[in-house]
Amino acid sequence: MAELPAAQPLMPVEQALEQLLAMADSAPIEQVQTVRLGDGAGRVLAEDLFAELDLPPWPNSAMDGYALRLADWTGEPLRVSQKIFAGKAPAPLEAGTCARIFTGAPLPDGADCVEMQENARVEADQRVSFTEPLRAGQNVRPKGQETRAGDRVLAAGTRLGAIELGLIASLGHAQVRVRRKPQVAVLSTGDELVEPGQPLQPGQIYNSNRQMLCSALQGLGCEVVDAGILPDDLDETRARLAALGDVDLILSTGGVSVGEADFLGIALREEGQLALWKLAIKPGKPLTCGHFRGVPVIGLPGNPASTLVTFTLLARPYLLRRLGMQDVAPMQFQVPAGFAWPKPGNRREYLRGRMERGRAIIYPNQSSGVLLSAAWAQGLVEVRENCTLVEGDWVNFIPFGELF
Amino acid sequence: MAELPAAQPLMPVEQALEQLLAMADSAPIEQVQTVRLGDGAGRVLAEDLFAELDLPPWPNSAMDGYALRLADWTGEPLRVSQKIFAGKAPAPLEAGTCARIFTGAPLPDGADCVEMQENARVEADQRVSFTEPLRAGQNVRPKGQETRAGDRVLAAGTRLGAIELGLIASLGHAQVRVRRKPQVAVLSTGDELVEPGQPLQPGQIYNSNRQMLCSALQGLGCEVVDAGILPDDLDETRARLAALGDVDLILSTGGVSVGEADFLGIALREEGQLALWKLAIKPGKPLTCGHFRGVPVIGLPGNPASTLVTFTLLARPYLLRRLGMQDVAPMQFQVPAGFAWPKPGNRREYLRGRMERGRAIIYPNQSSGVLLSAAWAQGLVEVRENCTLVEGDWVNFIPFGELF
Repeated sequence: MAELPAAQPLMPVEQALEQLLAMADSAPIEQVQTVRLGDGAGRVLAEDLFAELDLPPWPNSAMDGYALRLADWTGEPLRVSQKIFAGKAPAPLEAGTCARIFTGAPLPDGADCVEMQENARVEADQRVSFTEPLRAGQNVRPKGQETRAGDRVLAAGTRLGAIELGLIASLGHAQVRVRRKPQVAVLSTGDELVEPGQPLQPGQIYNSNRQMLCSALQGLGCEVVDAGILPDDLDETRARLAALGDVDLILSTGGVSVGEADFLGIALREEGQLALWKLAIKPGKPLTCGHFRGVPVIGLPGNPASTLVTFTLLARPYLLRRLGMQDVAPMQFQVPAGFAWPKPGNRREYLRGRMERGRAIIYPNQSSGVLLSAAWAQGLVEVRENCTLVEGDWVNFIPFGELF
Repeated sequence: MAELPAAQPLMPVEQALEQLLAMADSAPIEQVQTVRLGDGAGRVLAEDLFAELDLPPWPNSAMDGYALRLADWTGEPLRVSQKIFAGKAPAPLEAGTCARIFTGAPLPDGADCVEMQENARVEADQRVSFTEPLRAGQNVRPKGQETRAGDRVLAAGTRLGAIELGLIASLGHAQVRVRRKPQVAVLSTGDELVEPGQPLQPGQIYNSNRQMLCSALQGLGCEVVDAGILPDDLDETRARLAALGDVDLILSTGGVSVGEADFLGIALREEGQLALWKLAIKPGKPLTCGHFRGVPVIGLPGNPASTLVTFTLLARPYLLRRLGMQDVAPMQFQVPAGFAWPKPGNRREYLRGRMERGRAIIYPNQSSGVLLSAAWAQGLVEVRENCTLVEGDWVNFIPFGELF
């Protein structure tokens, strides 16, 4: 914030991430809540989750067909002594007979294989013959094949999606222990900002970052405290920050490059701490990192493209790490570039791009139409510093997918 | 449902999708709601969205620096006649002077370029000299660079994420017109199923699909009607289906391959329509498609891996198309296989896999540990029918990302 000294060397984004993750590790959000599975989406598991039962709890049939004891099959048709539906506890298999059985139904004691109905012939007397060779264990899902009681099924720090919640349900748990939601105060700085729905005065623009960040943070499983727009006034800035109380993070946008009018920076210097990083990325060079009265503050640049990139690469991983997640980097894929990049830059570029016929293409004008191009895009295309590209060269693609 | 005739040819998944999308096109969910932007995430835009103003509404500075009229720069230092912060309406530029200006602030009338402060020298008398050549328009973001009043900014049928909501906010809208949420009744069939939290009786297993589907559907922006577990009883099945009333879709799992005990199939045949597809995919072969008293029914297979795959490839695209989305396929990437596939299959396989060092690896045993492997996985790896693979061959990878 304030005047960035021109001589400050650019910080590689890896180094910034490392520092932020170290800060996150030193301020974990440790409180645990028990929530119903239906409320677990997007939450982070607080404790290792162990299976308390074998899955499946008993051997069962993988097919609709007939269960038998292999030793009973001599080539002579077998009488059907019972019919076993899924969900029913079968009687032990009567010696010298077979049992009609359906997918998922428990194997009766004494049976050791299942033949699918397509390979069975029902004789005129209703006895059953098998037309293919049989082997022990075929079409039987053994007890404990999926998990055994005592197995660690999910590690603490796992973020819960629909699949993890299904897995937890399959183990019989109706509730799950998760970290509490991080409370994140979102504030925008700048007298030029007006909330949508209000009339626009000369010199003003609508605040788009607030909506983008609030939605993205909610999708991430945060509780968002909407701290509004910070006016360009020092006393008011101090009072508004103090009123936020004990949130887990103050996430601000803008102000970082506004030079002389940066009251957020002044407030942080006076009542906390402030570091200004010049990141070796484009867009998104200036980043603020500090605290106000002990509450961590991350200040993202205010240009929406910069906000998008720095949120993706830095703020989001930081928040996930606060919750105890280890693997916090966004998913990325190596894809062929569908564009040329003739002029190397000294900063790593994150271009708004999309996949077309297996190649990453980029929005023609990356400096304009910021959110329009982001809405057109499916993700960010990474072009490394000091690199040129020809079409077909490999680039990293970070899909927006779950991010936005 | 019921006994699938063995002779029925396998249906390619593309054909199944095409039929489902045609059904969706013929039953669009057309009712429109106006929601606050904060409630817009995951919703689908009901109408084309047009810009009602130019963005930016006035030319503004892309840098902290000095605004001037190029013709006024003769090499002689210029006096600073005003200071323009973002959000302030500037006075017209006094001839023969420059204006201190900050990023995002409106360019004063009469100015035609901005020089960044790093290339400006403040003289002893506070006048300013410029050390680099200047050109008209530099560091100026022209009015309407992002969008112009009347431009179509987002098309009807766009699904709204954080970026789209930010874009809509930037245009000044506090609300947005979206299709109403689809009402989806989720039901599971099978007497063997017990909800988590209940004790397990012999022969029973916990219902995991309900939780997985409910979470995935909520993430998709649906209103989920939890229709519970359908008992293996025809009268009860009929009554429960009728009680669901006018939902947009009944999404069931299980029952499809349970043979003689398929009461859902019977109810559909009697009071609606029923088609049974044998899909040329693995897992996920049997799929039910029909209606009950006019309410569309999709019946996914009950094995969790099959549920996962058929939901991803078929049910999810169907629901998005009901909302008017055109591009409904999940995102996919071509990646090198980190595994070999020596034995070609006659069905297309969707394997639970993850990316490791740029290659897709698969869970070693795809037939066991279904949800455990899905939780381990980051997506589905597609292996086409009648194909073998060696390591390094290209495969499609469908990241779970936003799906689950």
